[in-house]
Formats: sequence, structure tokens, C-alpha cells
Amino acid sequence: MEFHIETRDPRSEARVGVLRTAHGAVETPAFVAVATRATVKALSVDDLRDIGVQILIGNTYHLILRPGAELVAELGGLHRFSGWDGPWMTDSGGFQVFSLGAGMEHGVGKIAPIFPEDAPPRPKGESLVRVEEGGAWVRSLLDGSWIRFTPEGVIRWERLLGADIILPLDECTSPFHDRDYTARAMERTHRWAERALAAFEKTRGLGPNPDQALYGIVQGGAYEDLRRRSARVIGGMGFPGFAIGGSLGRSKEDMYRVLEWTIPELPPERPRHLLGIGTVEDIVEAVARGIDTFDCAAPTRMARNGTLLSADEEGFRLHIKAARFRRDERPIEGDCDCPTCRRYTRAFLHHLFRCGELSYFRLATLHNLRFMVRLMSRIRSAIRAGRTLTPDALLPG
Amino acid sequence: MEFHIETRDPRSEARVGVLRTAHGAVETPAFVAVATRATVKALSVDDLRDIGVQILIGNTYHLILRPGAELVAELGGLHRFSGWDGPWMTDSGGFQVFSLGAGMEHGVGKIAPIFPEDAPPRPKGESLVRVEEGGAWVRSLLDGSWIRFTPEGVIRWERLLGADIILPLDECTSPFHDRDYTARAMERTHRWAERALAAFEKTRGLGPNPDQALYGIVQGGAYEDLRRRSARVIGGMGFPGFAIGGSLGRSKEDMYRVLEWTIPELPPERPRHLLGIGTVEDIVEAVARGIDTFDCAAPTRMARNGTLLSADEEGFRLHIKAARFRRDERPIEGDCDCPTCRRYTRAFLHHLFRCGELSYFRLATLHNLRFMVRLMSRIRSAIRAGRTLTPDALLPG
Repeated sequence: MEFHIETRDPRSEARVGVLRTAHGAVETPAFVAVATRATVKALSVDDLRDIGVQILIGNTYHLILRPGAELVAELGGLHRFSGWDGPWMTDSGGFQVFSLGAGMEHGVGKIAPIFPEDAPPRPKGESLVRVEEGGAWVRSLLDGSWIRFTPEGVIRWERLLGADIILPLDECTSPFHDRDYTARAMERTHRWAERALAAFEKTRGLGPNPDQALYGIVQGGAYEDLRRRSARVIGGMGFPGFAIGGSLGRSKEDMYRVLEWTIPELPPERPRHLLGIGTVEDIVEAVARGIDTFDCAAPTRMARNGTLLSADEEGFRLHIKAARFRRDERPIEGDCDCPTCRRYTRAFLHHLFRCGELSYFRLATLHNLRFMVRLMSRIRSAIRAGRTLTPDALLPG
Repeated sequence: MEFHIETRDPRSEARVGVLRTAHGAVETPAFVAVATRATVKALSVDDLRDIGVQILIGNTYHLILRPGAELVAELGGLHRFSGWDGPWMTDSGGFQVFSLGAGMEHGVGKIAPIFPEDAPPRPKGESLVRVEEGGAWVRSLLDGSWIRFTPEGVIRWERLLGADIILPLDECTSPFHDRDYTARAMERTHRWAERALAAFEKTRGLGPNPDQALYGIVQGGAYEDLRRRSARVIGGMGFPGFAIGGSLGRSKEDMYRVLEWTIPELPPERPRHLLGIGTVEDIVEAVARGIDTFDCAAPTRMARNGTLLSADEEGFRLHIKAARFRRDERPIEGDCDCPTCRRYTRAFLHHLFRCGELSYFRLATLHNLRFMVRLMSRIRSAIRAGRTLTPDALLPG
């Protein structure tokens, strides 16, 4: 993998670059489409090409449960198995260690405020995870059996899956973990990173893709000293790129501060990925702080739940279920060139959504992902042209 | 609407023709794709064009419940509302009168043996239909309210929907109705056909499509004298085309006999549609007996349930859930040119199906409908070339 920075924004940390992998190049800043089980939900690989998606991220936790890493390797690796022969990333399963463990105990997701204050408390179940120095035990969502995740085992699985960019096992903490636990989890994640690097070297030649790159993951919660320390430690280990994971605090401002502490400590010429973040505002703010790539399930999940992204609407979104769309003959977004906006009215999409028609899910997903692809392309153009990076400047309604 | 017969098979009643509508021509014999709620489940209109689908059939019962015939008319009719600007048919809701009424009481579908002999008995619920001389009361599946279906009201709804070919209200009988009830229902259907014709004339100018054609529906169950009488009576009313509906008996042989009684009594130059039939064998046998068009939900429903059509397999189908497909790197069908077979292996489709991934439903539906389109095209070529009409001759594995 190679990363070349083409343009830097003189007024911010934003940059335009190209990430070259053995399966093609990615223009950055880029949005990585989420393909948890080796498919973007509701889409085909031809769809992804049509709307300009550049790179996908699969999930090691889900893929080892079904169909299994050995089987994927036997069938030629993720690229050949899935039909997507462009760049692939795989997440390590670390986020599942978090979301099935502390996430379930604390009743929180990636950032606490994604649950509105007036939402009913989420059920707090028994933890499905046990974290130890050696690794983590995670319960299978398929049959309840305990599966062992170790830094070495995860690298082996990711070698077999064969993505172009892979991530090591880490422990995500929640905003409800105290400083002490967050620090201990971070130090353990650093030791796991060393073990992952060693395992990565030892497994050269394993699996379908000889040109994989292993990124390091920075942890440290919303604590300045921990984030700075994690970025320096992980940044000094020789990884060719970095991901920023774990708790980003309880608000957007917390998240922006975490990026401002972390990014200056990382090697400046290497690519930086922000895990699990994907609203328009967060992406624009994170690009300005030096992030090159993003993955987030929200645009595709929102599509399936009836929330469509549109520069024509307040807050850049509309809820297609609303009665006001019953007779609305406009496309979702006036200037959108996606297959959905070219053919379909809001009125028809409202009808499909109300009926629960399967066609709806694809049409909505096509549009929301095309929206993200166009947003990233506008961000790159704005950086190249030295224009302001704000949501309203990028998305004139 | 115009129908032109181009070639007749000297050894059977099969013919190749062209059905011209204001929204395009249909080469016959043709398969009409089922789009109950104004969409083929899981597909877009671009998908339908890509795989060569020529004509769709929507359902008046479902469409008046949601989004409503008035709203569809206000939005330009079915063609503009749905984005499918090719030929449309609409079914009258008569089959729903059957399937929610006697069908539910008798625990049967269109032909009794579609339920295997060892299947558990279907639950026999309270009838959701009341049939009277004036029309039928049918319960809404949305809110349980009673909706009145009359021959005149159905024509008005279909005028508002604006399909190119529309069907009048009829009463379908089941194989468990005796001769006496079947005869009485048939005579009532004949009186309803007269009323529908009168209403059709009276509503000229209503709705978005001035070029609609109203077909007559032949009933009479599996009784020779009733079928012959119904074909003569309906055939003499001046309809420009005919549909064959109702009970086709308890076996494939019963169905073939019903066609042999019915078709010779119909005007020979007009198109004939067989309602709700769609297996490979039944289509080939029905074409040989003089049927021009078919609609059937089975190919698309089977796709969603994991049954894929393939000339490479015994009985022309495979169950993608089976463990034997886990490592099968072949496409569903070796010589298929559909978007699914061009890109995906059976192994990956098996994975998607096992995961319940939304992408699966579209890929499977694309293939099964393309299979039907190719089957009909091969039938037309075979008739033109004077070749044998049998499933094995048409689909060499």
C-alpha cells in the first residue's frame, strides 16, 4: 500500500491524497462503505461501481462466524468470493468486543449522545465478552458458544480473508469507563498491537493477498493525555496507516477535541482512518482536522429505516414515511444523479416504504451512498480549490 | 390494443404474435411479471429493462388499499407513478375474492395439488369475503374494514390506475366447490362481465390512459360443459382478449383438459391470457394449447424463498440453502446472461441467503425472472422454427 498526499489545505489539516492498494486506488478523503458480511446491505457490486463507491469494509467477527475465514480463503479470498475486486478493509472484531461487552453493560453505542436524552434506557444485558491479557472471549451471536479473539488469531483470520487494509484487535472503551479502566485498556491495546505486528510478519505468505497493510489503532477515550500517549506509542510502531477508535466522548465537541489531540502526534505522511463516524457535519469537521477515510453504517442503515440524505432538506435529511411525501413528485434530491433520483419520485418511494417493499431498501441505499460519495468528492474539490469546508458551503440546497 | 399473429405451429395450437399497446409491444408467448403493489418485489424498473421483461401486472385490490386509485391517477397513473412506462396489466381483485373467501374456507390455492399430499392442513379461518349478485364485500387486510367490490367500481378503479390491459371482476371457484355452485358462480361472473363492459364504455375518458383494453375472463371450474359454455358466452361479448381464470382442477392433466375445452370456443385471432400459472412444464403445455400470455408470482416468490431456476439442475431448480452449494463456484446457470450469473457464484448466493442479506432477494429475483424471459424467447424461436415444444428440448442442461 502507498499513500500520496496531493494537496494540503493551508487553513486546516485537511488534505487530498491517493491511497494505492493492490486492488486499486482510493481518492481521499473517502467514505468506506460498510459491507459487514461481505455485501453492502441491499446492493450488488455493479451497484457499488455505478455510484462510485471506492472501497468496502467487512467485519472479521461476522465473517468468521459465517461463512468462516477458511472457507473465504478456499474460495479465493474476500475479493473473489464477494465479487468486489476493488479495495477491501476488514475491521478486527474489536468493536464487537466493545459493543457486546461494555456497550451492552453500559447501554451505550459509540458516542453516548447518539441516544437522545428522552429515549428509554436500553436494556442492560449480561456481558457477552470477557477481556483478558491474552485476548477476549466473545459469545457467538449464532449459537452462544464462546469464541477466542487474540491479536494473533485475528491477524490469521484477516490473512485468510485477504483484505487490502486490515486492523488489529483492540479494546474499545465506553464514555462510562473511568480514566483508570480506559488507561489500562489502552495499554493492553498497545501490547496487543505489538503482538499483532509480530503475527503479521510471521504470517507473510498466508492467505490470498500478499499485499496487505496492517493499520495501528489509537485508543485512549476522551482523555487528552491518554490519546496523546496512544497516538505516540502506536504512531511509533511502524504501521503504514492509523485508525482512531474507541470512545470519542459524549458530544461532537468532545470528538473534535480527541482528533485535535491525536492527529498531531501521528506520522504526518501516513493515512488516518476514523472508525464508525459518518454524519455530514462530523465528516467535514474531521477532514478539517486531518482525517483521510471514514467508515460508518449510518448512511446505509438510515436508508433502510426511511431516512434519506438530501441537500434540499433542513439538516440534510428527510423521513420518507412522512405523509407530506405522499404526493411529492420531486426526486429525493434535485441535483442527484443516482439511479433512484433519475427514475423515482418521493411519492413512489413513500409508497414502497409504507408497503415494506424490498425494492425500497436498495433504492434508498443507492441514494444515501451516492450522497456520501458526492459529499467526499465535493470535499476533495473544495480542498483543491482552497474553498471553505462547511456543510452548507459543500451542499447548497 | 392490437394483436397480430405472426406464426402458427402446424402441429399444435401454439402461435407467435405481437400485442401492441399504447405503451409498447409485447412479443408473445410472453411472461407477465407480477408487480402486485406497483413494483416487482426487490427490483427496479431499470432492472426489469435490463433482463428483458416486457410487461407487468399490478393488483387492483392491493393498489386501492395503498396508495389508493385516486392518488395513483392524480400522480399520472400507474406508468408514471411506478416509473415503468412499458405495458401494464391490472388484475381485478377477483382472485382476492376467491383467496380470502372460499380459498380460506377450503384451505386451497389455485389448484389443489400445489399443496403436497403430506403437507399439514392449512388453517381454515373465517371467510373474509361475502359474494352477492351486486358484487362482493371483501375485508381489508390493512384495517379489517369491509370494502365493496362491484363490476362497475372495479372498472372505475382500473380506469384511474390506467393499465393498458384490465380485467373485470369475476368470482373464482375452488376445486372443492360442487358443480352446482361452480355453475351459479360462473353465470354470475357472466352477468358481471356484461356490467363491466357497460361500465367500461361509460367511463371512457376517465383516468390517465385513453387506450385501455378490457379482457373477458372465462370461468367454469374443471367441468367441460361449464368451461365450454363460459368460453362461448364470454367469447361472444366482444372483448378484445381473454383470460382463463378460476379452478383448473386438481392436477396438471385437469388443467391441460380445461385449456383443450376452453380455447377452441374462443375467437381464434384474439390474445389469451392464463391467470396465475407459471411452472416451466405448465407454460410449455399451455402454449401448445394456444395460450399467449402468463402471469405468476411463483418465479419471484420462489427466488425469495431460496429456489432458483436452472436448466443445469434436475427439475430445472435448485435450493440455494443446501450445504452442497457452500463451495460451489459455478453461476446458478452455466449459460445465463443475467446480472447475477455474470458476477456471482452459488457459494456467495448461499452465503447471502443463509445470512438473510437483502442483496440476496434482488439477485435471486433477477435470475429467476431472466430465466422466464429466456424461456419465453426460446418458446417463440422453437415455434418459428417448427421445433418440438418440450421442456427438455427448450432447456438443454
